[in-house]
Amino acid sequence: MATTSNPVKIGLVGLGKIAVDQHIPAIRNNPALELVAGCSPQTRPDGLPGYDDMQAMLAAHPEIAALAICTPPQVRHRLAMEALAAGRHVFLEKPPAATLGEAESLRARAAEKGVTLLASWHSRFAPAVSAARAWVAARKISNISVMWKENVRQWHPGQKWIFAPGGMGVFDPGINGLSILTRIVPDAVIVKKADLHFPANCDAPIEVQMDLQTESGVPVRAEFNFLQENQQTWSIVVEAEDGGKLALHLGGTELEIDGRQVLKEPEHEYPGLYAHFHQLIASGQSDADFAPLRIVADAFMVGKRIAAPDYIE
Amino acid sequence: MATTSNPVKIGLVGLGKIAVDQHIPAIRNNPALELVAGCSPQTRPDGLPGYDDMQAMLAAHPEIAALAICTPPQVRHRLAMEALAAGRHVFLEKPPAATLGEAESLRARAAEKGVTLLASWHSRFAPAVSAARAWVAARKISNISVMWKENVRQWHPGQKWIFAPGGMGVFDPGINGLSILTRIVPDAVIVKKADLHFPANCDAPIEVQMDLQTESGVPVRAEFNFLQENQQTWSIVVEAEDGGKLALHLGGTELEIDGRQVLKEPEHEYPGLYAHFHQLIASGQSDADFAPLRIVADAFMVGKRIAAPDYIE
Repeated sequence: MATTSNPVKIGLVGLGKIAVDQHIPAIRNNPALELVAGCSPQTRPDGLPGYDDMQAMLAAHPEIAALAICTPPQVRHRLAMEALAAGRHVFLEKPPAATLGEAESLRARAAEKGVTLLASWHSRFAPAVSAARAWVAARKISNISVMWKENVRQWHPGQKWIFAPGGMGVFDPGINGLSILTRIVPDAVIVKKADLHFPANCDAPIEVQMDLQTESGVPVRAEFNFLQENQQTWSIVVEAEDGGKLALHLGGTELEIDGRQVLKEPEHEYPGLYAHFHQLIASGQSDADFAPLRIVADAFMVGKRIAAPDYIE
Repeated sequence: MATTSNPVKIGLVGLGKIAVDQHIPAIRNNPALELVAGCSPQTRPDGLPGYDDMQAMLAAHPEIAALAICTPPQVRHRLAMEALAAGRHVFLEKPPAATLGEAESLRARAAEKGVTLLASWHSRFAPAVSAARAWVAARKISNISVMWKENVRQWHPGQKWIFAPGGMGVFDPGINGLSILTRIVPDAVIVKKADLHFPANCDAPIEVQMDLQTESGVPVRAEFNFLQENQQTWSIVVEAEDGGKLALHLGGTELEIDGRQVLKEPEHEYPGLYAHFHQLIASGQSDADFAPLRIVADAFMVGKRIAAPDYIE
């Protein structure tokens, strides 16, 4: 499974903020990968051949072996199905699709075509996640909280799709917390109750409170807020029956155990994700876990709808 | 797999309208089954030992081998988990749980305990469904519509849970149409767009329009309405590329092919369901297909919310 002498050639689909900020540098800094081209109906990539759409890019660069799909979720399924049908490995930005039905059909198609599908959850590659998983595995857990509170105006400027149907609203960042939660607890997590605050002019919630439970009965409280000013919070706190306490802060870049900081590292998620993608391709495997998306769908289905003030960017 | 000389002893959990109207007569008319007792915090069954709760019923009747869970969906999961933990086979009314997370945990638990789980979809046992499935399998399909329009005041009097969070609103009958749809088409069905009409005083929609698509690309239109007066509609129409047309009416009790009625039979769903349950127990299998619930969850997740007038029963 070592790096082969021929790097895997990659094409980028969608050239928005996440592609430019994260995917392009992560691919360029991985010697096992080679960034060949990018496509977008709106923009052209810097220093790279650019195309209007994926089919034009693949026609010009048949050597592309893998496609990273970074478009908004609403159009990801069609593009990913075309990519898989063309026999390409696929890296899906999060969330992996707009619906569970789409996600499951991608998993089935990738298996049928014998190519790699990575449903990526970048937050699972935050530096403190594996240590947190090990800590949880060694203890009887009594309580968990997931607090994801950020300022949408700061982090998602101009991203109107986020409040459109299928855009998920505050679940878009909140699902990052859920992706860490479902990685560090060993059993499934089930939604019991959700309060969804919908601005009258939006089709997705701006604030969410949820009561969840692990299959073994541990209560989990989740609170997501998109209107958080000043201190931004991306934290998970786990309490154990022996009185121990673990806290992940700043999306998993800081780890505290029993009140003492034991890890603080710069964010390095996308390099980890791309190393994982390369390893999956090299070993002929897929990684397509949809548990975080299932939690979101369940919350929408059982949630109480609460009216919130209009959201004006 | 024939009927054994010892009938399977069954306990009923929940004694509401569906239990009295459908489950009790279906069990009593099946010689392979024996109705032993029922439980409900509110009512007592006619001519049958009654208990306040499932644990009291099982303590008094350890011979009960299978439990039929007919409570509202919001409490079904806890009861079903207890029933499976007690090593009993479980028949779940539809929908199988309030969330996909709950449903999947029930499937996993039943497999672990080696007992039968039936996630029942009674409409799949309507008389015209198997003929419709065969007709669809023999043709290239071009278009499908699912119209489920009924008067909530007539069919769900006093059932306040239906508009509570997790009660699903008009999806409660609509999921019957989806359960037939997902039985008669061979591939998965994916939600593309949904309009959800929420009365301001309800936590579940009263009217829904959806655009769906089968994995092979056939468009499916679904329209559910809970305020239908006069003519009630529970119909699925399938058009084939060869010009052929199939219509299921009245929930699958009538079948029309190319405009000619070819089948009209009285509804006989629960006897069929209980025969299926008995066969699953006898052969040590489960039947737990959650595709209709997945479609509903996906519709909630990507749906556009449209304000509807208050609903006053």
